[in-house]
Amino acid sequence: MIVIGERINGTRKLVGNSIQTKNKDHIIKETKEQTEAGAHMIDVNAGKNPASEVTDMQWLMEIVQSHTALPLCLDSANPKVIEAALAANKNGRPLVNSVTDEGERINGMMPVIMKYNAMAVALLIDEKGVPDTVDRRLQIADSLVPKMLKHGIKVEDIYVDPCIFPLSTNTMYGLEAAESIKKVKARFPGIKTTCGLSNISFGLPLRGLMNQAFVVMLMCNGLDSALIDPLDKKMMSLIAAARALLNKDDFCMEYVVAAKEGKLV
Amino acid sequence: MIVIGERINGTRKLVGNSIQTKNKDHIIKETKEQTEAGAHMIDVNAGKNPASEVTDMQWLMEIVQSHTALPLCLDSANPKVIEAALAANKNGRPLVNSVTDEGERINGMMPVIMKYNAMAVALLIDEKGVPDTVDRRLQIADSLVPKMLKHGIKVEDIYVDPCIFPLSTNTMYGLEAAESIKKVKARFPGIKTTCGLSNISFGLPLRGLMNQAFVVMLMCNGLDSALIDPLDKKMMSLIAAARALLNKDDFCMEYVVAAKEGKLV
Repeated sequence: MIVIGERINGTRKLVGNSIQTKNKDHIIKETKEQTEAGAHMIDVNAGKNPASEVTDMQWLMEIVQSHTALPLCLDSANPKVIEAALAANKNGRPLVNSVTDEGERINGMMPVIMKYNAMAVALLIDEKGVPDTVDRRLQIADSLVPKMLKHGIKVEDIYVDPCIFPLSTNTMYGLEAAESIKKVKARFPGIKTTCGLSNISFGLPLRGLMNQAFVVMLMCNGLDSALIDPLDKKMMSLIAAARALLNKDDFCMEYVVAAKEGKLV
Repeated sequence: MIVIGERINGTRKLVGNSIQTKNKDHIIKETKEQTEAGAHMIDVNAGKNPASEVTDMQWLMEIVQSHTALPLCLDSANPKVIEAALAANKNGRPLVNSVTDEGERINGMMPVIMKYNAMAVALLIDEKGVPDTVDRRLQIADSLVPKMLKHGIKVEDIYVDPCIFPLSTNTMYGLEAAESIKKVKARFPGIKTTCGLSNISFGLPLRGLMNQAFVVMLMCNGLDSALIDPLDKKMMSLIAAARALLNKDDFCMEYVVAAKEGKLV
């Protein structure tokens, strides 16, 4: 289970303000804290200002890469931003978030991804919009994944994101997300999955609690990675326990060591 | 998900001492606290003293039933104790824990269970001992469940307990428990499942954390009830969240109300 630290996102107020005022302090803090908390990758999202997204992303990456050796998840819908980000990448092999099946977006994204040998998130959205059923997700995957493979990416470098929607709008959305993950993995052997997990709890009280239960549920259905808040110590602890329960932690050693080091709650 | 409060068990030190000295205070406290914490049933287990188990059970039940209206889970391997307990039952419809496929135990248990119209736990153990694989569990279920049905019990009144073993002894035991629950439910439509959930964490640090992740995992595989500690507020909170995620809480109303009442963490 790859934990992608989600906190450096320009749509969050403090991060957005830091980008606007070019104040490094908060970005450095978020970088260090997520790294120390056990994230495996750091998401970098410069926000939604089209006029400055390229330079904002470069500014963010310069700070982040000066304070962590973790690989980055480069998060933008704009191929120009992704290209600039890939060129600025100095850490490990990055993950590009994301490619969708919307018109020319794939042809804008995939050549740059291949040029820099990056991994890619396949977000299950097409020109008809976001998917509202498991079948629609599979239809989009059936269209999108082969197109990505044609560009030469390996199947194991694709992370399918099923699009998580709030449980508060439809109480089937948790089960549908779980089923989509399971079915996508069965349909494309070797493919990986990821998601923006916290969307599930939008509109509900105690969002952290709902996210905690959801991460265990999705891991039981094969989830390989997720954008989450690694500073949620209970979430990270449940992930460690779930890994052991899913036979992904030999002799429960990582769980036992993390417990002894006081990292679990 | 039926939460069976596990705390009134004679093998626990304080409860065992209370039984021996016939001190009601601690039993009253455990009864009230488990009821207030949201348990749906209260397990009553008088411990392992064969000379006094019948009278110990009657003594315990008298106290418990004076302080809660919840139905009881009558917990003993001895049919004589179960018969005395069923005769002393004044609360709702009880669950007998447990019937196994060991020789004459089923013929000792089932007639009393039927006489009092109780529900029954089918613990997957036979004369060869405890099961060490999913297949062995299914073999025992295939032998035990039809025998119970022949006594006239309805399939929906049977709670199959797959026998949970510590993850610390074999890291496949979590997955095997989950698979057993799923397969037993597929094989006997309408049948229910339960388990002594905390066995999974025996020998590991932070047992509560491991139990919390495990309850979500098993609920995702169809678990209907479990013997757990309802005073573990995080466990109860994760169960509430998992119920909503599994589409068992219309409009997430119970989750939202419990959150507003401060019952979730």
